[in-house]
Amino acid sequence: MMKIGIIGGGSIGLLISSYLCVEHEVTIYVRRVEQKQKINDHGLYLSGNPTPFPVKALLLDEIEKEDYIIICVKQSQVSTILTKLNKDDQDTPVVFLQNGMGHIEQLNETNKTVFLGVVEHGALRKGDNIVCHTGRGIIKLAAFRKEDKERLKIFAQQLTQDYFPVKLAAEWRLLLSEKLVVNAVINPLTALFHVKNGAILHNPYINELAKELCRESAMVLDLDYFKQWKLVQVVAENTRENISSMLKDIQAHRQTEIEAISGYIIRQTNEQTQIPFTKFVYHAVKSQEMLGERDI
Amino acid sequence: MMKIGIIGGGSIGLLISSYLCVEHEVTIYVRRVEQKQKINDHGLYLSGNPTPFPVKALLLDEIEKEDYIIICVKQSQVSTILTKLNKDDQDTPVVFLQNGMGHIEQLNETNKTVFLGVVEHGALRKGDNIVCHTGRGIIKLAAFRKEDKERLKIFAQQLTQDYFPVKLAAEWRLLLSEKLVVNAVINPLTALFHVKNGAILHNPYINELAKELCRESAMVLDLDYFKQWKLVQVVAENTRENISSMLKDIQAHRQTEIEAISGYIIRQTNEQTQIPFTKFVYHAVKSQEMLGERDI
Repeated sequence: MMKIGIIGGGSIGLLISSYLCVEHEVTIYVRRVEQKQKINDHGLYLSGNPTPFPVKALLLDEIEKEDYIIICVKQSQVSTILTKLNKDDQDTPVVFLQNGMGHIEQLNETNKTVFLGVVEHGALRKGDNIVCHTGRGIIKLAAFRKEDKERLKIFAQQLTQDYFPVKLAAEWRLLLSEKLVVNAVINPLTALFHVKNGAILHNPYINELAKELCRESAMVLDLDYFKQWKLVQVVAENTRENISSMLKDIQAHRQTEIEAISGYIIRQTNEQTQIPFTKFVYHAVKSQEMLGERDI
Repeated sequence: MMKIGIIGGGSIGLLISSYLCVEHEVTIYVRRVEQKQKINDHGLYLSGNPTPFPVKALLLDEIEKEDYIIICVKQSQVSTILTKLNKDDQDTPVVFLQNGMGHIEQLNETNKTVFLGVVEHGALRKGDNIVCHTGRGIIKLAAFRKEDKERLKIFAQQLTQDYFPVKLAAEWRLLLSEKLVVNAVINPLTALFHVKNGAILHNPYINELAKELCRESAMVLDLDYFKQWKLVQVVAENTRENISSMLKDIQAHRQTEIEAISGYIIRQTNEQTQIPFTKFVYHAVKSQEMLGERDI
């Protein structure tokens, strides 16, 4: 049994907490007092499960000593969290599960043991202490530094469960790049056209745009286009009835992760690199964020 | 006084009929029996005008001998109309007021006198026999063949009114190309983002995309980018509270004029021409047409 701190009370933070708390001592760190109280008073509900899980909740300013910390906040909040964590001098390994790769630049500055991961689960937060597991998947982890590989192996073995598998990936860059391509294709297009993920495959015009986006991101991230396009298709098919996180954000008039996804890809290139489709969706999603709600 | 046939009972057809019928004998040719009857029974209402105009309406199959015929149908219906008109062997001059330039290819096949024009009025059809003049502007006309310039001059002089001015343009290609650039920028972006025309100027991200679209269309149509971009800005500012025709079509789940606008520009290029932003909006608007209504 490990003492695990989960930072972030969004859908992924709640989902992971609800599974891990069965075998470990989980504390979930949240931003709002209301969410903290709701979880402490009533427990955490995983939909389909009749009884709540007794998870402890604290605020972000109350971080205690943990064996491991898993960060489930959005990309844009990572730097604030990292500044907080760097203040204590304990070597608590930190696991980053963000979409995109924007947070990588900041990781060189920390001397903590860092694991990077991608989450292939679908989750929907239905309330401050209610989460719905909308798509079963796995979590893949890789060590940021080679010397931490053994430590990661031990961590992953303790973490994995039959219904919540955790697997190891050989190399963090490939792991995150491949996920980034999938996100760079599916997220902006679904957000822009207000369609479910399946439309990437089933609407021939969106499909055409998806291929162009996949080609551009694979080129920038130095990946094989054909392999990546297959991967995008598999994910779009497996999640065809899902609403992407970026579309959810646009619908809720929240800031999206476009900076960490298409924005990151654009920042990897110079002026000469031809990635017009990526630039189009970047500007398009930014314009949607600005509009807030449709003005007609 | 001339005998003028107006083909098409949409907003522009109704608007032009309501102005011209004061000084000319106007017949409006429509597709649906209901619209024909409504106009014949109750007259044509121009909003703001207390009494209706007594305009005669007939069906498209009942075209009579006219001095001039003005075609106000959408681009996509032009070929059907042209086939009908070519059957009679009278040299009734025909005026085309379509957006885009897709119809130009078909005009070489007719031996009729052809005038081409652009409409800079805003109009909104509120019912089968009710039209609202939402933006005052002008109609600009040019002769398709040089030998018809004198005839056009006489026609325009008879047509023009103080509150409904008709002006001559020197050259049809420039006239239509400049309008096409404006349409190729404003129409797809407003349709895609569900914004009023003013957003082209006031949302910095849409503004960025607008510049790219303007650059591409100006290049393909051999026009000066800076002059065209100024023109786009003037039109977007003057019509800032308007909903573009393409957005109206998308909202009403109708087919748009994307083929005649962005589609026309794409068809003027070869595979090597780099017009990715135009291709993006083309595919994006086509995908919207296919979706019909948003599937979420």
